[in-house]
Parts: sequence; C-alpha cells; structure tokens
Amino acid sequence: MKLASYKSGRDGQLMIVDRGLQRCCPAGDLAPTMQTALDDWSNIAPRLQERYEHLCEGTLDASSAFEPGKCAAPLPRSYHWADGSAYVTHVELVRKARGADMPTSFWEDPLVYMGASDAFIGPEDPVTAESEDWGIDFEGEVVVVTDDVAAGTTADEAAKHIKLLGIVNDVSLRNLIPGELAKQFGFYQSKPWTAFAPVFVTPDELGTAWDGARLHLPLRATLNGELIGAPNAGQDMTFDFPTLIAHCAKSRSLISGTVIGSGTVSNVGSKDGSCCLAEVRCLETLRDGKPSTPFMSFGDRIHIEMLDGEGASVFGAIDQQIRPFERSTV
Amino acid sequence: MKLASYKSGRDGQLMIVDRGLQRCCPAGDLAPTMQTALDDWSNIAPRLQERYEHLCEGTLDASSAFEPGKCAAPLPRSYHWADGSAYVTHVELVRKARGADMPTSFWEDPLVYMGASDAFIGPEDPVTAESEDWGIDFEGEVVVVTDDVAAGTTADEAAKHIKLLGIVNDVSLRNLIPGELAKQFGFYQSKPWTAFAPVFVTPDELGTAWDGARLHLPLRATLNGELIGAPNAGQDMTFDFPTLIAHCAKSRSLISGTVIGSGTVSNVGSKDGSCCLAEVRCLETLRDGKPSTPFMSFGDRIHIEMLDGEGASVFGAIDQQIRPFERSTV
Repeated sequence: MKLASYKSGRDGQLMIVDRGLQRCCPAGDLAPTMQTALDDWSNIAPRLQERYEHLCEGTLDASSAFEPGKCAAPLPRSYHWADGSAYVTHVELVRKARGADMPTSFWEDPLVYMGASDAFIGPEDPVTAESEDWGIDFEGEVVVVTDDVAAGTTADEAAKHIKLLGIVNDVSLRNLIPGELAKQFGFYQSKPWTAFAPVFVTPDELGTAWDGARLHLPLRATLNGELIGAPNAGQDMTFDFPTLIAHCAKSRSLISGTVIGSGTVSNVGSKDGSCCLAEVRCLETLRDGKPSTPFMSFGDRIHIEMLDGEGASVFGAIDQQIRPFERSTV
Repeated sequence: MKLASYKSGRDGQLMIVDRGLQRCCPAGDLAPTMQTALDDWSNIAPRLQERYEHLCEGTLDASSAFEPGKCAAPLPRSYHWADGSAYVTHVELVRKARGADMPTSFWEDPLVYMGASDAFIGPEDPVTAESEDWGIDFEGEVVVVTDDVAAGTTADEAAKHIKLLGIVNDVSLRNLIPGELAKQFGFYQSKPWTAFAPVFVTPDELGTAWDGARLHLPLRATLNGELIGAPNAGQDMTFDFPTLIAHCAKSRSLISGTVIGSGTVSNVGSKDGSCCLAEVRCLETLRDGKPSTPFMSFGDRIHIEMLDGEGASVFGAIDQQIRPFERSTV
C-alpha cells in the first residue's frame, strides 16, 4: 500500500493513496497519524491494507483526487533519523577530489550520522536558507522505516523490520560542513532539512525491484529541468539496509518509526550522473582541477523522483524551490 | 511547577508533582502526555500551574504519594535531542590528557551533536550494554526544553524559549568513541541511552539559582555510594543555554519539546570532583601517566542528583544499575 500525510497540525492526517497516485482517502478512523499507525503497526497495517485494496479497485465510496501539494512528509516528525553513507564509492570520490585517502575500514564499517528528525518537510515545501553562501545542495536518497528493533539485532534478522520505504532530499549546506567535521562531533547546522516524496510504500508494492535489502531502480534528480543524474539505487550500495539497521541497533533498541537513510545514491564511475551537486563538482575537480557547477541559488527548483520499469512514479515527486529564510515557527 | 511522566505506553502519563517531590496527581485531562502539553504549551501550562499550586497547598482532593520508580523520562521520547559540550574546560582537559592541542575556535564556537531522542530512559531504569569492554561511563548534565524556536533566532531572543529544565545521565561508551570520531560523522553507537531525573521543572521554581542562562547549583554524581564529584553547573559554562539554542537554530527552526543539553558539567581545576569517569581518568593520566579508575562494571550503581541551597532535591534522583543487555523492544 501507499500512505501519505496531508498537512494538519504538527503530525498531519494519515491518508491512503492508490497505486497510481491518483486517488486517496482518509485513514483517520484507523490511525489519526502515521506515527500512531507505526506505534501499533501489526494491528493497524492490515486494516489500512484492506482499505487500500478497495481504493485501488475503485470500490470505495469516499475517495478524492490525490493532491501532492497538500502533503507534509509522510511522517512529519520522527523520533529517530539515522542517515548512512552506504554508497562508499561516493565517499571515495569526494575524498579523491580533495586529495585525501580513504581509510579501508570505510568499506567494512558503515558511516551513519544522526539527522534532524524534527525537521522533516513536505515534497513541495521550499528549502530555506539564510544565505546562498552556505553552499545549498540536494542529496537524493532512499529511506526505510522500521518497527521496533531490539538492541543487538543482526543484519540477518533486520530485514523483517523494514515496513515502509520512501525517497528524500537530504538538504546539505556544503560550505558549513568542513568546519563542523573538523570539530569531530558530526553534522549539525550543515544538515538542516530533509524533504520527503509524498508517499511511503510497503515493500510488497515494489515487486522484484526490492530484494529485501536494496531497491533496484534509478533515482532521478533534475535541477531547473535539467537531469543531473539517475543512478541506480540497487547498484554499488556497499551496505544494504539490513546492515545499516544492525549497525544502528548495536548498542540500543530502535523504536517504531525510525527512519534509516542510504546516503546519496551513487554508482561507480557516475556514468548515469549524480544525485547531488557535490559529486558533480568532485568529478569536475578531478577532470579540470576545479569545479564549474555552482551549488543551488535562490529560485532554483530541485525535482527528485523514482520511476518503476513502466515509467510510473513510485513515491510521487519531490519538487522544491530554494528560498531565503522566512522566519516562522514550524 | 514540576512535571513527571509515569510509565504508560510509549509516551507515559503526564503527572504534576509537588515542590517537595512527595505528592502527585495526574494531569491527563489537561494533556495526556508531556509532548501534547509542549505542543500547545502557552495554553496548557497555565492550567497545569493552577493545579500544581493546589497540589502544593494541599487543597487538591485527588493526590497520591509520588513514586519515582514508576517514572519514565519526563519526556519519554522527543523529536530532537541536541547535546552540547558547553564546559570547554572539560574538552580541554580530555585533549590535554591525550597530548592533543585544542583549536582556539572551541572557545568561541559551540560543540553540539545530535543525540538519540528516541532512547530516553527513566530515572531508575537499568543502563544496559552488551559488554563492559565498551567502557561504560556516565555523564551528569543539565538540560533545557524549548518551545518552538524560529530559524535564525539569536541568543538574546533565545532565553524566553526555555520552558523546562532537567538533569540527565548521558550514557557514553568510551571505548567506542575513538573509532566513531575518527570517521568524522560524530557519535552514534557510542551514545546509546540518556536517563532523566524524575521531574522537569519550570524556571521560576529555581529562584536565584537560575539566571536565565545558567543553573548555579552543584550536580552530584555518586558511584556505588562514593561521591565522584559535585561541580557547580553555573561555573565555567563557556556557552550558556541561550547561546546553545541560537547555535541549534542557526539553519532551521526547532520544534516544541526540543531538549538541549549542557554536556558534562565540569569546573576549572576539578576541585569539587567530576561528573564523569572519563574526566577522573584524564586527571589521573596527567598526574600518574595512566588512569587507575576503571569505567563502570555490571552491577554498579550510579546516582545523579541536584540539591538546592537547603539540601532539597530539585529534580529527584537518577539512580541506575549497570546491567548486561536484555534483548527486548522498548
């Protein structure tokens, strides 16, 4: 099934969306919000699924046109957002461009950082920043949402905890990163917002594209109408999602609604382009000695989407404009 | 006023606790959980306050003995836990002990990392770990809880967003830290749990000990009945709470219920002892060439508490035993 949250209060209103992303119906009587559904997923999911099937079959009386512009992130605020950097080829490229070696341990031990789970934004919400000088970049990623995961869960056991998948734009302020990483406490100001495509989908919706560990479809990133890249998310993912989950649960349990990200999707050699401008600039640096593509400017529009084998949108589109700060509370 | 959450479901049941931490009453009719109270704080807080005053005056019919053992963390799961390292004297000492210089920028630009806001545990919950080899340590800290904070809020404007204060034991797995920091993505596996004292208190409860930016009382850490230290949280705090909030809100807004921590309380020269074993071991290393105090062992008991000028407990006590993992979901 496919699930969205229409904007309403702080946690949105849970909506069921049909396979083709054309029609939707509210699910508030089953679970008012995505988090309440996740809190009791084994009981709630079958009821949502039943209504979803009626919606897809057209046998539901009360449905309406699905409007992505009304969407918050499917889970508007989460208690945990752990973002990996699972395409190690990307990390290697970034380091190569700045003349730094990469420790061989990076191929064996996942890189994961804690992201801002309270700063999830909707698919068409603007990306705001105080200054273009911050180096505003997008990062196209795949994410999974887990149920409760016990501390010490192994990768073998982790796959069954993946309940939903989605795609995100993990906004990065590139020019704030070097200073933060030098302090060794990880990203903070440099990773402000994460925008989500309109719907989360259950693994069964993905057919053979989902092998239980990786999602084998290209993730398309388009900036101002120009395709920047469409690398395949199933290729060159050094650490698959069960491995990332086991890494996150090594020293403590995870609670239902935990969002775990792949990091920027990237393929060896970048033959199908890139899912962030940092990678484009690294390739330019290696080729020309310096980058020529600028980071994003106010007014730019970033579009991120994943199409299935028949060209249909799986998660709906992220389509955001870059804008100066508007000082308002969430 | 003072507020706690008795264990109940995932988010606890909001309780009002009297000034002396002797009596309590439920607040579920006003707000079922701490987060729902925070989501609408300006409306809910005055009603909680009114009942608190009746409770303290003894004019409330339905009150019962307050039982800290029934407590979850006052906010059992939060959307954002940003932990600072605001006592720079502590950072300097740790670096000195390992022969490393500290960049002078550390005195001007706050160190903050994103903590595990879904892994908050109650004051008497065990601290679990798979192995003592992980180097299990406690960290005594002061925290504040904010309401909604707009992106770009300055330190001058930030103080008014502090709605509640608490104390925590930020559990650290010292032997997992060097490997994680070397990867530059910050703490993840090395910061599993944060335990909270039974109650959050509003700033007005603290009298002159709270100056709007720092809390001027000693934080006492006792291990197996032996006082490890009682440094004063108001002294040597290089970055006060409004400064930490402004740092966190530089590139995005914060939502109500954001928890911001001071980092391990530490005074120059450590004359009143330390609030973590890492600092004790650093002092030993500087004096003797090597540490002699071990990290915590299974069966150990850590007690963290803050007493006011009259010796009364402000937040109640954190009192936890260290235990091997029990594989269970939260």
